[in-house]
Amino acid sequence: MSDQRAKAIQIAHEQRQTFLQELKEFAAIPSISTAPESKPDINRAAAWTARKLESIGMRNVRVIPTAGHPVVYGEHLQAGDGAPTMLIYGHYDVQPAEPLELWKSGAFEPTVRGDELFARGASDMKGQVMATIAAVDAALQAGHLPINVKFLIEGEEEIGSPSLEKFILENKELLASDFALNPDTGMLAPDFPTITYALRGLAYFEVRVYGPDHDLHSGLYGGIVHNPAQVLCELIAGMHDEQNRITLPGFYDRVRPLDTDERAALARLPFGEDYFLKQTGAPALRGEAGYTVIERLGARPTLEVNGLLSGYTGEGSKTVLPAWAMAKISCRLVPDQDPEEVHQQLLNYLEAHAPETVRWEVLVHAGSPASISNRESSWVKAFARAQEAVWGKPPAFRREGGSVPVVILFQNLLGIESVNTGFGLPDDRAHSPNEKVHLPTLYRGVDALVHFLYNLA
Amino acid sequence: MSDQRAKAIQIAHEQRQTFLQELKEFAAIPSISTAPESKPDINRAAAWTARKLESIGMRNVRVIPTAGHPVVYGEHLQAGDGAPTMLIYGHYDVQPAEPLELWKSGAFEPTVRGDELFARGASDMKGQVMATIAAVDAALQAGHLPINVKFLIEGEEEIGSPSLEKFILENKELLASDFALNPDTGMLAPDFPTITYALRGLAYFEVRVYGPDHDLHSGLYGGIVHNPAQVLCELIAGMHDEQNRITLPGFYDRVRPLDTDERAALARLPFGEDYFLKQTGAPALRGEAGYTVIERLGARPTLEVNGLLSGYTGEGSKTVLPAWAMAKISCRLVPDQDPEEVHQQLLNYLEAHAPETVRWEVLVHAGSPASISNRESSWVKAFARAQEAVWGKPPAFRREGGSVPVVILFQNLLGIESVNTGFGLPDDRAHSPNEKVHLPTLYRGVDALVHFLYNLA
Repeated sequence: MSDQRAKAIQIAHEQRQTFLQELKEFAAIPSISTAPESKPDINRAAAWTARKLESIGMRNVRVIPTAGHPVVYGEHLQAGDGAPTMLIYGHYDVQPAEPLELWKSGAFEPTVRGDELFARGASDMKGQVMATIAAVDAALQAGHLPINVKFLIEGEEEIGSPSLEKFILENKELLASDFALNPDTGMLAPDFPTITYALRGLAYFEVRVYGPDHDLHSGLYGGIVHNPAQVLCELIAGMHDEQNRITLPGFYDRVRPLDTDERAALARLPFGEDYFLKQTGAPALRGEAGYTVIERLGARPTLEVNGLLSGYTGEGSKTVLPAWAMAKISCRLVPDQDPEEVHQQLLNYLEAHAPETVRWEVLVHAGSPASISNRESSWVKAFARAQEAVWGKPPAFRREGGSVPVVILFQNLLGIESVNTGFGLPDDRAHSPNEKVHLPTLYRGVDALVHFLYNLA
Repeated sequence: MSDQRAKAIQIAHEQRQTFLQELKEFAAIPSISTAPESKPDINRAAAWTARKLESIGMRNVRVIPTAGHPVVYGEHLQAGDGAPTMLIYGHYDVQPAEPLELWKSGAFEPTVRGDELFARGASDMKGQVMATIAAVDAALQAGHLPINVKFLIEGEEEIGSPSLEKFILENKELLASDFALNPDTGMLAPDFPTITYALRGLAYFEVRVYGPDHDLHSGLYGGIVHNPAQVLCELIAGMHDEQNRITLPGFYDRVRPLDTDERAALARLPFGEDYFLKQTGAPALRGEAGYTVIERLGARPTLEVNGLLSGYTGEGSKTVLPAWAMAKISCRLVPDQDPEEVHQQLLNYLEAHAPETVRWEVLVHAGSPASISNRESSWVKAFARAQEAVWGKPPAFRREGGSVPVVILFQNLLGIESVNTGFGLPDDRAHSPNEKVHLPTLYRGVDALVHFLYNLA
């Protein structure tokens, strides 16, 4: 190990108490991006992030306004000729904390219990942002930052990053880099360093079916009109076949098949049905025929009902034949599906299958394509070596089921690949009450990030 | 026309403004039987009804508690030897008013526009209750009530009359009568006086389907568990076949077939598809193969979805894979189906078709069998003559799709037939926003009821 690398690791270790103290300070700011009343806290969190970047020696630190919440930027470009530039992505906003009564300690009163820090954002992703800053800080203190870095810390990730595309387009030169680091995708388990090389996209719809022009008395009219709630159920029931394949016409046409190597690699991940039965609490698992659980989660598209509403839904009974029915339906997409095409496929399905007894419409709520990253890039290999140095084993490579639109934005707008990783765990309860981060894992993450900086030099 | 009869008709005409004023007062009480928070209004409506009965000279007026909402009773038994006793049935409770935003004037702010009074309960059935009281009042004011009458006005009709059977059993002597008048079944059109000789029963259920033990992130878990909203849709879709027949095992076993005479009589009613397209505003009609619209409505059983709820139903999108889904499902029953058997048929269907990927349960909200009445009784004939005196034509005899459990309770527990009629119209929007009653028709109804009293003497 080089002197500088060893010194940086040592510095990171010595600063763990300060790191924890500052993370608690950061996590105490209720920067909930979806809540208009949290705007002052959003601004406070952005300012806090900017001050922190300045304090470790970042240059050109700015809080850049957008149509929504501001982006925090900072850079350090003194690595010298031939050194690569890394764009570090993060977000300082968090999910709402409700239901508050389920928290054992306040969502914004960061509290350590045992090895874990409990707070909204501790894992997703203030802890991860602080880990990247701590690693850069340690290298700078050790004498010299071996690569160039740029930080892009946004404030709208938890509401779908609505201002990010425009921000990137307007700041392409400022953001120009060789690759990106995205520590927002987490690990499979504390002893499983993980690199995520594929993320699913999302196409989110609302399907509305209209029958009679007003709610009818189910006795006076039941039996002569096609109940729109029943029609909606029939349409939804037809969207999967007996193999649990999605029946929208052409839905699989662009789905990139898994190759033998990748299937073999995914098969080595020790997360089978038992693990996911425990995680979900479902009586039994079920998914597309011909694929393993891990393949279904990351490499195959889905169509899920996210919500259903029709007629009377209160206590007891009301004998109404409802005038209309609604379903929120979303598809997780894989490469190379296109959200706009999937929208058209849904329309085609409804054209073909909706009976003449109803009218229908489809609203589009969101659409972003999937991303897949090069598993063999030098950046990925450098990060894998960093993980192996800390955990003593190579990382697991996985596809993840969730959607992180920034990865594809960086690919499409900046032409760069991302290393998707992070040190959050599946039981961190991101988005749920009692979110926490496992501190020993997060500290190992800082060490891995320090190694990564030197591996890239 | 006898002097007394003519005088009573004249009094009824003179009192129309008072009648309307009092109906508005009655309809302004939000006596929603299904809403626990409406209990004070239920009690207020019961007290209002009792005061009204006393004010016209009813004796022994009582508000009689039950396990649920109270029954209002009053009687006038001075008609003398040989006069028959008529039990007048009504209910003072109403359906919920939601969705409130669709009302043009407040659901409980009765408003006259043109010939119509708009309010929840105006037609179903506070207007009908007031019409019977007005007719008895007019006869009493004219000098002498020609028959004995007893009023039974309950407060639980809109929730399936759960306390009524016990109440009748415990008050058989009090209620003993020669026949019953039930003005809760309405007319086919303003120029079609109607007597309903068959009513459908009701079996109302709530089906709940449970999947994962908590709401899941649809990205992180979508594709590996069976979405309970999808399962519910699949189960509901399977409850009808391509002929629109209901697939619950054994569902049609006890259904009494229509005989040729009755089919011929029903075929003479001038209400075909166009009429019901207009009434419902549906793009097209649809029902069980092999039956006319009129037959489907009154003589064939149904299974309707009355409500659907699962997951996220607010504005925009939330990528949740819901932990559970719910449907309110009710069957309209015909003779000789048994609600308890239908409950068992639903359980058998779910046992056979629900996948092992979910758990499920069924709640029972209401159950009452269908009824069929003697079309040739002297009471029915007396009422038909009363209708002919007012409308100048004999009534249409029909089967009705709605459920009035009290008819079969009176048959079974008191051994009496009911004359089922009323002055509500198909476009009154009973159970829907902007419920109204057509005042000229309701006033004709009062006249017909006055004639009926004298026809029976």
